[in-house]
Amino acid sequence: MNNQKLLVIKIGGNSIDNSNELSRFIENIATIKTSFILVHGGGKLATDLAEKLNIPQQLIDGRRITDAETIKIATMVYAGYINKNIVALLQKNNKNSIGLSGADANLIQTTKRIHPTIDYGFVGDLNENSVNTDFIENLITFGLTPVVNAITHDGNGQLLNTNADSIANALAVSLASKYEVSLLYCFEKKGVLYDPSNDDSVIENLNHQQFEQLKKEGIISKGMLPKLDNCFNALQNGVKEIGILKATNILSFLNNTTHEYTRIIE
Amino acid sequence: MNNQKLLVIKIGGNSIDNSNELSRFIENIATIKTSFILVHGGGKLATDLAEKLNIPQQLIDGRRITDAETIKIATMVYAGYINKNIVALLQKNNKNSIGLSGADANLIQTTKRIHPTIDYGFVGDLNENSVNTDFIENLITFGLTPVVNAITHDGNGQLLNTNADSIANALAVSLASKYEVSLLYCFEKKGVLYDPSNDDSVIENLNHQQFEQLKKEGIISKGMLPKLDNCFNALQNGVKEIGILKATNILSFLNNTTHEYTRIIE
Repeated sequence: MNNQKLLVIKIGGNSIDNSNELSRFIENIATIKTSFILVHGGGKLATDLAEKLNIPQQLIDGRRITDAETIKIATMVYAGYINKNIVALLQKNNKNSIGLSGADANLIQTTKRIHPTIDYGFVGDLNENSVNTDFIENLITFGLTPVVNAITHDGNGQLLNTNADSIANALAVSLASKYEVSLLYCFEKKGVLYDPSNDDSVIENLNHQQFEQLKKEGIISKGMLPKLDNCFNALQNGVKEIGILKATNILSFLNNTTHEYTRIIE
Repeated sequence: MNNQKLLVIKIGGNSIDNSNELSRFIENIATIKTSFILVHGGGKLATDLAEKLNIPQQLIDGRRITDAETIKIATMVYAGYINKNIVALLQKNNKNSIGLSGADANLIQTTKRIHPTIDYGFVGDLNENSVNTDFIENLITFGLTPVVNAITHDGNGQLLNTNADSIANALAVSLASKYEVSLLYCFEKKGVLYDPSNDDSVIENLNHQQFEQLKKEGIISKGMLPKLDNCFNALQNGVKEIGILKATNILSFLNNTTHEYTRIIE
């Protein structure tokens, strides 16, 4: 391990759905001097396209069921439209970047989810050997910024839809043996909130014990739970720093000129 | 220049639209030991999606007008769906590959077409400096097979639709200074035909003088003309060998066990 810093930046939520906001975010991160990997999802655009094509979307416990038509849509939207637009915007801002799905250079190989009662369809789960760490390291050494989308593959010709938060987590953990990694989850809120309706109720530091307590009390719930499980997992596996923050605050976070974000601590 | 051989293989037409045929083609080319680059378009699938979304497609002289909605569709279908499925199939067949648009690693930068009377929309034209040759060479040296789609970028954040035949041509010419390049156009016909309705009327060797003659006589026309203009241009610019052949004949072509193809000669 060398001491070179690396940021793994996940961008999601409304920050991707709104193209003006996305452009501003890309302009901002293009100025970052530290090497970084950008990971993105893009849920709402895929939902919109499915609607236009009259393909019903089934959600179970907030998780999308990825049938044959839906994996096509996810591949078109995540690996095509969003990924290539982000890369083109980074190029515009003089940040040489390369868009990658998990199939490209066998970057992320996953296993189709097997569940005793629910058929999630073409959903891929990560394991500890999923990430092709050497390839990512080569790209970074070559001066390229990897832009990774949520489409992975099973090694047997099948594309699979994978949770983008989990991909960011897996990349951060797998690269922690080679870099000093910061994992930054950027979205439309200022951080983990005591009160979801009050954007100023940011929990500034969150350790595992507090997390378990807030979970019990129902203060942290829904989509935030798997994200935070990922975070504590990453911290236990060598990732140096984890922040959950508003996408528009990324530069002030990196410059230490804001305290409005959530830092995950042990 | 070293004497290493490199194939630039363009796949198009029905060979892409039919998923069984595409799978067989990928299985075949995955066995090729010589380094290669695969270039693909994917017209019919994009047309189908535009139809489902009720986005009218305008063609002028056989060329698609790429309006704002159509470049979205092209990006989703070419850079997303088709590109990632081809890469996943190559991975399945143990050929480590990487899918790339022109925006990725600034691989192919083009200029939006300016035409005195027709607004072609978001169409990108190639120039002699369009291809990032060093990057492709690095990938090949690293043992990766580049899979290049027809989406390029203008360097200013705009994705552009580019003719896939022209991309194959530009890649072949730009790499001719570094490799001994064969350029192979694979599609559903056995080659350039005297009689388009008779698949056995293959013109086995075609030189520039004959081409001009057959063009005058109207025997070669329509979509074949720009393809052949590209071919003679490539031959004049250092590409060693150019073949136009049926996709299913690619291995017999490479093994010299068929004479049913068109070879472009000076």
